[in-house]
Amino acid sequence: MATTYDLVILGGGPGGFDAAIEAAGSGLKTALVEAAELGGTCLNRGCIPTKLWLGATEAVDELAAQAKMRVATGSVDIDFAALQTRKDKYLAATRKAMGMRLAQLGVDLVPGLGRVVAAGSLEVATAEGPTPLSYRNLIVATGSRPGSFPGLAPDGARVLDSTGLLALAEMPKSLIVVGGGFIGLEMAQAAHRMGATITLVDALPRLAGMEDPEVSKTLESVFKRQGWDLRLGVKVASVKTRGEEAVLTLEGGEELHADCALIAVGRKPNTADLGLEALGATLNGAGYIQTDAQLQAAPNVSAVGDVNGRMLLAHAASHQAHYVVERLLGRTAKPYDSGPVPSILYGAPEVFRAGTMAEEAKAQGSSVLVSRAQLIANPIAQAHAATAGFVKCIWRDGKVAGITAVGAGVSRLACFATLIIKLGWTREEAEAFMFPHPTLDESLKAALLADKEAV
Amino acid sequence: MATTYDLVILGGGPGGFDAAIEAAGSGLKTALVEAAELGGTCLNRGCIPTKLWLGATEAVDELAAQAKMRVATGSVDIDFAALQTRKDKYLAATRKAMGMRLAQLGVDLVPGLGRVVAAGSLEVATAEGPTPLSYRNLIVATGSRPGSFPGLAPDGARVLDSTGLLALAEMPKSLIVVGGGFIGLEMAQAAHRMGATITLVDALPRLAGMEDPEVSKTLESVFKRQGWDLRLGVKVASVKTRGEEAVLTLEGGEELHADCALIAVGRKPNTADLGLEALGATLNGAGYIQTDAQLQAAPNVSAVGDVNGRMLLAHAASHQAHYVVERLLGRTAKPYDSGPVPSILYGAPEVFRAGTMAEEAKAQGSSVLVSRAQLIANPIAQAHAATAGFVKCIWRDGKVAGITAVGAGVSRLACFATLIIKLGWTREEAEAFMFPHPTLDESLKAALLADKEAV
Repeated sequence: MATTYDLVILGGGPGGFDAAIEAAGSGLKTALVEAAELGGTCLNRGCIPTKLWLGATEAVDELAAQAKMRVATGSVDIDFAALQTRKDKYLAATRKAMGMRLAQLGVDLVPGLGRVVAAGSLEVATAEGPTPLSYRNLIVATGSRPGSFPGLAPDGARVLDSTGLLALAEMPKSLIVVGGGFIGLEMAQAAHRMGATITLVDALPRLAGMEDPEVSKTLESVFKRQGWDLRLGVKVASVKTRGEEAVLTLEGGEELHADCALIAVGRKPNTADLGLEALGATLNGAGYIQTDAQLQAAPNVSAVGDVNGRMLLAHAASHQAHYVVERLLGRTAKPYDSGPVPSILYGAPEVFRAGTMAEEAKAQGSSVLVSRAQLIANPIAQAHAATAGFVKCIWRDGKVAGITAVGAGVSRLACFATLIIKLGWTREEAEAFMFPHPTLDESLKAALLADKEAV
Repeated sequence: MATTYDLVILGGGPGGFDAAIEAAGSGLKTALVEAAELGGTCLNRGCIPTKLWLGATEAVDELAAQAKMRVATGSVDIDFAALQTRKDKYLAATRKAMGMRLAQLGVDLVPGLGRVVAAGSLEVATAEGPTPLSYRNLIVATGSRPGSFPGLAPDGARVLDSTGLLALAEMPKSLIVVGGGFIGLEMAQAAHRMGATITLVDALPRLAGMEDPEVSKTLESVFKRQGWDLRLGVKVASVKTRGEEAVLTLEGGEELHADCALIAVGRKPNTADLGLEALGATLNGAGYIQTDAQLQAAPNVSAVGDVNGRMLLAHAASHQAHYVVERLLGRTAKPYDSGPVPSILYGAPEVFRAGTMAEEAKAQGSSVLVSRAQLIANPIAQAHAATAGFVKCIWRDGKVAGITAVGAGVSRLACFATLIIKLGWTREEAEAFMFPHPTLDESLKAALLADKEAV
């Protein structure tokens, strides 16, 4: 007779892994089912390798900024093969550490694809054949994968998704990026720092279309000055490998050519064939698992992370996982409350956002005021010769409801700003707080204390 | 009959300038008396020019870190003359903007040294001769200047204070730094990045003697690896210019030679000959103005910033200035409350500290626990190949009472950590907060959630 686990988790990304650690640490008999690698998209094919690329190349941008001021000269050359080796070693070491942590805590790691066969019962397709698993509670955390559109599919040759680009052995000399969201922008920046010419195409009329329109404007102006060819508000007919090139054809017929093309047009959930519908779970039109206020998809089944479509962010997955485990342990019965959710674009410039944005409030018919400060007035931005950008605060009923920022280094504001929104600071609270001087954070202080305008 | 000002302020540094702006903005008839330049030490001879040096040279350290990983090659050369020109232009532009802001708000700027002649009455030694000024309220914000000891005085040749070093036309090839506090360490780092060989001497047995001893250890290990000659716990007999050299003689007789020597052994207040004693104000043994719980030194006389000796930090001066103006405007009658005071060492590594430190609590007989996390476990630290350092939390009665950190980029934790201490977070509050991933701030999360140990 096989063990019945207190908790089985499908998926070992940030949500699933954190849930396993916390549940096992609290005494639940836990199994983690993972078809590929521990760490999921974030560690293996997303946030972390991208940050290793951006971190390794930061000196390029720092030098360029000072060179423009005629304060520095020199050159920084990245050995891409060495960087890839370093990245792969770091990811492998991290996966190994994660595996050891699971083992320490007594979590059973079951390698394979899991599928629900009946309430309380799973089958995992392992290398040794189908393995049955029994659970009292199930957390689905199977994540997402790169999306594509007809004519816009990676072809395994020179048209790549983010996973393909991160796995290259050689950095292309020219890159077409389809999609001006955070994934496209981070990869384009890293590639540009390593010498690639960038052409960026998006059907939306602006970069980072989810962000405040002023943020988009700043991004566009900085990247144009860096020589990127921005093609915004245009439709792509197809992207194909043709001989030694990737060729993008616009709907009008114009062709764009590069060594490679990256397709970064969003993501889709890994929900096919999980067998959840038999338990009463519903997938929405895009395939995401629908969850109730307690993140439940069906009796004794919760879904966390990308797969529930609430917020495709690693930290949202971890936060949801913590909540679900607390609920399973009987420590909370409240509905899930994300609080303000921070999101960050890394690079130079960076973008940070949390809470309610002005356009969003307007669309909801809610009345907000905004206040802002430009980075050019900040001595740390001046010291880094990177002064394009601003911090913008959104106020509702005299309290901070949202904050966004664009500019070099603004990711450093993320946690502080998120907490300010969570607390709903008033102007007086901002005045009473001692901001260290000089810091880039004082641009947030300046924005908080600036005159407010209607939008 | 001359105007009687609602408020006269002595000193146009961060404390005095901010007080003037806020008072005038609230309708007080205000005069600002400044003997030298607007912006005080911070802008002209302290924080800001040092940050311009460190910002301009950051690519040097970023490249060195990646080069050590064999991921990057190249060189970054700083044109010191161009950097000095850039610095001087930026400081001049900032002073000009400050002057314009005062003029806009109707603040009378009186250039000269002010001295109290009787209650309500000052005399300013201006270029046109003595000018009388009448006040209802006086704020003394005259700041501080570099200190020295017998045998350890700048001589105007090759033995310099921080002001002298910042004014150099050429960066020395070798530099002796006397004093391992924040001023000495920031300047030594900037000089090192611009090619100077560093010898650092301090009578204390560790660097940054005000900080947590573990912080000192990390600093020492990083700087030693960078090739600095650290001479700690040794006494200096003298530092003199001898021909084309600065020569430091240790008490044992050993001589150290360099192109220049920087004396960074603390600061002393600018309180001589202000005439405050006649009003009933008291100076302590070190010359600092003694203030009561409302920052008052005498009837209708307040003292803010370095001059009151509470905290020699620009942001402490601004924070005190805000409080005093609020009090003068009748908006508060409460005693001054600084909240947790953040302090930052810039460079690589950086140091951040706020709230109560473990050693301090122990010395007070108060029982605290500590929890810590190493930066090596953080992916952003890994991405920058700068993994030496840690974050340490100090807990009292289940609440965060202090946080300190050392390592590349840890200054980004400063505001967030200060607010956490101000709120007195519990472990549960840390768990409930959504930290964005991946961020260096997650090292703070890891420290907050780590097991606590007694000290």
